[in-house]
Amino acid sequence: MFVCINERPADNPKGCCKAKGGVEVRDELKLQLKKLGLSKSIRANNSGCLDQCEHGVTVVVYPEQVWYGGVTVDDVKEIVEKHLVGGEPVTRLLLPDQPHLGDQKK
Amino acid sequence: MFVCINERPADNPKGCCKAKGGVEVRDELKLQLKKLGLSKSIRANNSGCLDQCEHGVTVVVYPEQVWYGGVTVDDVKEIVEKHLVGGEPVTRLLLPDQPHLGDQKK
Repeated sequence: MFVCINERPADNPKGCCKAKGGVEVRDELKLQLKKLGLSKSIRANNSGCLDQCEHGVTVVVYPEQVWYGGVTVDDVKEIVEKHLVGGEPVTRLLLPDQPHLGDQKK
Repeated sequence: MFVCINERPADNPKGCCKAKGGVEVRDELKLQLKKLGLSKSIRANNSGCLDQCEHGVTVVVYPEQVWYGGVTVDDVKEIVEKHLVGGEPVTRLLLPDQPHLGDQKK
């Protein structure tokens, strides 16, 4: 899984995932995965811009290609327990565009 | 697609993708994708460590989860034309472990 930690200039109207807490979300994911002994099988990795700046913090889980937006540190436990362990995406955090469901916007 | 640009200390025996040219590979991918008008549909993104340091530069293409190792700038055109356009992975650059084929090593 990839967590955007891209940084944009402070005056960019879209904002950026770094300013919205990308690094903290990644660190919390790593911590929760470690607690559950999942660090070897699931990697919480950094990524550059995932092109969803206005919806940040953006997280994408592969290979199932589930995209989350507006993720905070407080959401991490739910993503790990419900999705990564339980196999059920956290519906309330899903971005409108989900490639695995087809492009729903256009 | 994600290109590892992680940097490790120069004395690390595994080496790292940054020292092996990760940034240059990513830049060349971006360039080739742009030339073919594919920048909107395929993103050559940075990633942190993909845990294949000894096989760097490491590139992973999602959603098909095809993993490449030892990628150089000279390989980029072939990856773009054969795999991303033509749909055929570049066999000579595949890493031994390919999740989409099952774990072949263990």
